[in-house]
Amino acid sequence: MSTLKGCDVTKGQASLGVRSFKAVDLSVELVPERPTKPDLRGAPFGSVFTDHMLSVQWTLAQGWEPPRITPFRNLSLHPASSGLQYAIQLYEGLKAYRGADGRLRLFRPLLNMDRMVRSAERACLPVFDQAELLECIRRLVELESEWVTESDPASLYIRPTFIGTETFLGLRRPTRALLYVVLSPGLGTYFSTGADLALWAEPKYIRAWRGGTGDVKMGGNYGGSLAPQCEALERGCQQLLWLYGDDQQITEAGTMNIFLHWTNENGVEELATPPLDGLILPGVTRQSILELAREWGVCQVTERVLPMAELLRGLQDGRVTELFGSGTASLLCPVGRVHYRGEDFLIPRQESGLSLSTRLLKKLKDIQYGRVASDWTFLV
Amino acid sequence: MSTLKGCDVTKGQASLGVRSFKAVDLSVELVPERPTKPDLRGAPFGSVFTDHMLSVQWTLAQGWEPPRITPFRNLSLHPASSGLQYAIQLYEGLKAYRGADGRLRLFRPLLNMDRMVRSAERACLPVFDQAELLECIRRLVELESEWVTESDPASLYIRPTFIGTETFLGLRRPTRALLYVVLSPGLGTYFSTGADLALWAEPKYIRAWRGGTGDVKMGGNYGGSLAPQCEALERGCQQLLWLYGDDQQITEAGTMNIFLHWTNENGVEELATPPLDGLILPGVTRQSILELAREWGVCQVTERVLPMAELLRGLQDGRVTELFGSGTASLLCPVGRVHYRGEDFLIPRQESGLSLSTRLLKKLKDIQYGRVASDWTFLV
Repeated sequence: MSTLKGCDVTKGQASLGVRSFKAVDLSVELVPERPTKPDLRGAPFGSVFTDHMLSVQWTLAQGWEPPRITPFRNLSLHPASSGLQYAIQLYEGLKAYRGADGRLRLFRPLLNMDRMVRSAERACLPVFDQAELLECIRRLVELESEWVTESDPASLYIRPTFIGTETFLGLRRPTRALLYVVLSPGLGTYFSTGADLALWAEPKYIRAWRGGTGDVKMGGNYGGSLAPQCEALERGCQQLLWLYGDDQQITEAGTMNIFLHWTNENGVEELATPPLDGLILPGVTRQSILELAREWGVCQVTERVLPMAELLRGLQDGRVTELFGSGTASLLCPVGRVHYRGEDFLIPRQESGLSLSTRLLKKLKDIQYGRVASDWTFLV
Repeated sequence: MSTLKGCDVTKGQASLGVRSFKAVDLSVELVPERPTKPDLRGAPFGSVFTDHMLSVQWTLAQGWEPPRITPFRNLSLHPASSGLQYAIQLYEGLKAYRGADGRLRLFRPLLNMDRMVRSAERACLPVFDQAELLECIRRLVELESEWVTESDPASLYIRPTFIGTETFLGLRRPTRALLYVVLSPGLGTYFSTGADLALWAEPKYIRAWRGGTGDVKMGGNYGGSLAPQCEALERGCQQLLWLYGDDQQITEAGTMNIFLHWTNENGVEELATPPLDGLILPGVTRQSILELAREWGVCQVTERVLPMAELLRGLQDGRVTELFGSGTASLLCPVGRVHYRGEDFLIPRQESGLSLSTRLLKKLKDIQYGRVASDWTFLV
């Protein structure tokens, strides 16, 4: 076990003596010979994978098997697997960054591990010790470290996935499951447009709802959102601005959390984001932005309901400074335009490097690439 | 192509000249030797599979490949498959029944094929000609027909499944997909309790919502419902009675549609079921029950919103005759008890064979097992 020094304290029942696989039992089967690495220039995010992967099998009868690193390969799955039939599936997304000092860092990875355990509980999949999975991932990243070049924004995207692998067609708590982790190196960012995001605000589609699964990272949240996203693309927008309820609350932007920096209706400068009320995903970047902005004390920082009408009035009155999305894949992504009820609403963009989003982005990147010391850093 | 005589007329864009795989291109690879068949007595629903399966691959570049019948085997899937990551997945369920005349029949199978195409459209998966898939399934069922014994309620459960098989981690319209069909023979019914169902009516969990995917058969509808179902089991109930909205509308019962037979608040005998308003699955059994009951004219037959309070008042006043679920797996399933806000509400059960549900069940089974002629029958 590597120490977890400097990392967020883990919470949740999974760490409290739960039966888990152990990193000390990890076996490693290497590829006989490293294949030639593809040219990553021009390769879209998520299209190239490294040579090895991590897998851990679980059965109700035997519990967790020892974790294994093997050559990257296809999964062999029973056609009745509940991961394929009933979306008993969840994933996580985090990144490894190579700093100017040559070292590889993860960013607050135990927050991802904690969320993964919460997703597993909601999906009726077995839990595990977050620190054990993190150590297995660290070993995998270490093995594949030559895939990560030093240039910012190059990174290694880490995709833990957890699925039910029943050999049975009834809908029931899984008795077989597979946790696996693949790595995807990339030079660029999630959105390839280069320009600010355009969002389609359309109340006819709802991403998630109270009593559902919007606050965990289960696959079903995404499957239902693809058709709306394709419709958004047809309308010249990259993503949806997801609305909820009779007051059309702003909840998320595509697969990102959303932040509004403005002078609010009380005349107070505010950085506002929707609250963790079960509808939205508790993003690691979201949490980090809130913590940084509160620490800096530059303006009022609030988690609250943001009805669409408030945003529109703010735009009309010229009170909006910035609107931006946040997420692991895209980090911080300014919104340039919102399309709503057939009308385009342009969002101001701060030209200088003095905007709050630019300052946040710089701080987050400085931490991720090791240019400043931080207890959010986890060294590989 | 077998003729589709006597079957429901197919609708939807998929049949209107869409590019589809063709049954005439079907190739068949048989198992070298048929393995010994397991004893089906005591085998739970969905736990045994026949010797062969049907698969059809699709890629954006090449379109549909020829359909293939092969020995039943595990799928080989890329770890990034969108069916595993983002629940780009859907399924169908229908059954083949062996009649007293020895012939195998499907029940209104084009309704399932039509719904599968609607699900595919919602999941951003490619469409196909419903009649072509049905003919491929017919060929598979014919090949496996010896798995189906003559006794009612024995049947062969048919599970078409359709998943995204991207080799790419971004969430986008799939460029690769796999449609497959497996068959599971069974002697019994879906619920093994033998007694009437107990349902847990709990407003804190919501199955589906307007603007979501509740009216198509995508996996995400089921993944989110498993934890509530497990909680229902802990409370001594088999399934949830799903509620929706401030007026706690009754929407579905577990994975079934729901029917209330009662004397309504206007003193009129009524068979009522929730409407197809986007929240509930348009069940084939549901549609058949509505059509039979309307044809018989025994009482008023309505599709309408049913708030929980109306059901409770009906129970209090002794106006409820029956409450029952409907679905392919369970056909018609009487509800004996509803657990709501810590209280048990007992549902009357007609002891004699004269109840409406008994009459409906008999008629449906008579059609399925070929004891009466019907244009709902599709001969294999």
